[in-house]
Amino acid sequence: MMKFIHTADWHIGKKIHGFQLLKEQEEVYRQLVEVAVKEKVDAIVIAGDLYDRAVPPAEAVLLLNKMLMELNIVQKIPLLVVSGNHDSSTRLATGGPWYEFLNFHLVTKIEDSLKPIVLGNTQFFLLPYFEPIDARLYFGDSSLTTHELAAKRVVEEMKKSFDPNYHQVLVAHLFVAGSLRTDSETEVTVGGLDQVSASVFKDFDYVALGHLHNPNASRHERIQYSGTLLKFSVSEANQAKGFKLIELTDEGNLKNTFYPVESTKSLRVLTGFFDDLTARDYYETQKKDDYLFIQLKDTQIIPDAMNRLREIYPNVLGMERLDKTGLLSKMGQLNKEKIQQSSPRALFEKYYQEVTGDSLSKQQTDLLTTIFAQLKIEEEDQTQ
Amino acid sequence: MMKFIHTADWHIGKKIHGFQLLKEQEEVYRQLVEVAVKEKVDAIVIAGDLYDRAVPPAEAVLLLNKMLMELNIVQKIPLLVVSGNHDSSTRLATGGPWYEFLNFHLVTKIEDSLKPIVLGNTQFFLLPYFEPIDARLYFGDSSLTTHELAAKRVVEEMKKSFDPNYHQVLVAHLFVAGSLRTDSETEVTVGGLDQVSASVFKDFDYVALGHLHNPNASRHERIQYSGTLLKFSVSEANQAKGFKLIELTDEGNLKNTFYPVESTKSLRVLTGFFDDLTARDYYETQKKDDYLFIQLKDTQIIPDAMNRLREIYPNVLGMERLDKTGLLSKMGQLNKEKIQQSSPRALFEKYYQEVTGDSLSKQQTDLLTTIFAQLKIEEEDQTQ
Repeated sequence: MMKFIHTADWHIGKKIHGFQLLKEQEEVYRQLVEVAVKEKVDAIVIAGDLYDRAVPPAEAVLLLNKMLMELNIVQKIPLLVVSGNHDSSTRLATGGPWYEFLNFHLVTKIEDSLKPIVLGNTQFFLLPYFEPIDARLYFGDSSLTTHELAAKRVVEEMKKSFDPNYHQVLVAHLFVAGSLRTDSETEVTVGGLDQVSASVFKDFDYVALGHLHNPNASRHERIQYSGTLLKFSVSEANQAKGFKLIELTDEGNLKNTFYPVESTKSLRVLTGFFDDLTARDYYETQKKDDYLFIQLKDTQIIPDAMNRLREIYPNVLGMERLDKTGLLSKMGQLNKEKIQQSSPRALFEKYYQEVTGDSLSKQQTDLLTTIFAQLKIEEEDQTQ
Repeated sequence: MMKFIHTADWHIGKKIHGFQLLKEQEEVYRQLVEVAVKEKVDAIVIAGDLYDRAVPPAEAVLLLNKMLMELNIVQKIPLLVVSGNHDSSTRLATGGPWYEFLNFHLVTKIEDSLKPIVLGNTQFFLLPYFEPIDARLYFGDSSLTTHELAAKRVVEEMKKSFDPNYHQVLVAHLFVAGSLRTDSETEVTVGGLDQVSASVFKDFDYVALGHLHNPNASRHERIQYSGTLLKFSVSEANQAKGFKLIELTDEGNLKNTFYPVESTKSLRVLTGFFDDLTARDYYETQKKDDYLFIQLKDTQIIPDAMNRLREIYPNVLGMERLDKTGLLSKMGQLNKEKIQQSSPRALFEKYYQEVTGDSLSKQQTDLLTTIFAQLKIEEEDQTQ
């Protein structure tokens, strides 16, 4: 029996709309550690994108080091890790040769993916994110022009080390054709040039993937994404978040258990009319400090809406109008032609009235006059 | 007997005047490895500034990792390393907990400096570069306002762990009062606020320092800087470069042997008249691809001097005139008043003639007229 946790895409150091997530990242990590310890797993697989950026901020470096140290040195759990497209393979590789001695296997280069790490009944092949050019250079084969061809060649090479007495698990960071994307997985390639057919992986007992953030992104039972531990965008708001516990019996039977995790602050979408969302009766039923994306049904202009929402919900990430055409039609009481004919100052006065219900004071009008005169001079200078 | 190499200030990734030094850094490192292996040293001390910057370029990360791996994992030599002011203590700390298991001791925080690493007959205390504020926070003592007071407090704490059966060696990255500075050691503090009296360290058998680049910077026999392995600036051109082999007998006798190292390309200053330096008879006696700083004795204007020098000496770092007043007097044949009265175009024509010996062509004159007219418009716009 081989029992391991499959996780990926930690993106330590990621910010969403300026909000630092380190605290939440540590929270969900704790839930993973608990399961790992309780289930006495044989290994933890992290399938790439440990960091969010090639050069992560120092606090992210500190946090990830702490996490990996706790898992590997304190809890003594073998780690099987590859670099993802968000990681700098060179920077992530720091310490790698020393990690080996404590059963922390970190692979950042194709050449190191070809020889398996043997744990229990399983040969693990650790394939980092790579580009076709890397495969062309490594194999000296200029025909490897796509991710598909490159992955095929790599797997072919791996198969030479397949031992029939063991199961084979592939850890990789790539896009399997037919999987479901989310908009937060950056670097989407036009025309699907980055996709690899599932059939390439048919000889593996399990393929533990990273790259896509949805744990249900893949349709193939034995080719799975773990998904992220946190919601990283509005489009992920309805996705389950967690990791997978994989059990592979000696007979080759696979059991896949999804463990959901939850951070204190979740990422949610609130939809409604401004007056409803800001009514005490409503917001007292809400976890107000969640990361919220607000969808307003209103078609009226709402003065200072964002700041007023943030007085109630401090972690509003963003706001949008559901009925954009309705809103525009209200704003369009001045028709287009009229707008073009109006002076900037007249337009501003109109806007100010709509938003505040007040007229401009004498002082405000004077200030506006000065500002627009200054802007006009600058504009003329530039077009000279 | 304890026999160790004392080195520091590798500054991996440093560039001088845009020239990458990685190749030279690897060359001199090789010479250190050779001695370490041949002398069967018990340890290698690296007293800070392993990198040149908090976020070193990826190639620098690759090189340093390779070096440390070879020394510690391949050659199995214990490493005693502290972070310097050029290192990011957080980033450098990556891998630290794993290194411990292979006798690679990397300390980046005060708290980890207080307990010694015992090797052979010696207790090594590894003190990273730190600021007084770090000591104030760690000891909860607001009186530690200077480097002197902070270092004193740290040493006091270290002494609690002194074992009379062992010798005590301190590894640190700081400025000992009275030592000789060079201009390439950045972050020189006004008024010597960063200095620490030698007396603070009187109870150590040896103090292996980093920070200053000159191996003879300290006047104290038992408090020594190793100096850098390479020359990093013109002011270091006449310094010996290398590392120290320290032998500490069980009786406490100290032997300090300086091992010079040399890179294929050295950094040198060439002084002379332009015509002499560029004469075949002369330059054929020179190692032309060294990193050269040229000091010209000429007082004449020399057209295109830098490019002409680089045709012979490809790695010229910089050039200066020894007799600046002489040069200025030649250029001053147009006296100051006359210069102020001349039009920019007339001045440029004069300059062009002096440098090339030619007059401006019709095409060049037209181009100049256009350019100056354009510049005049832009200038007026800005002062409007």
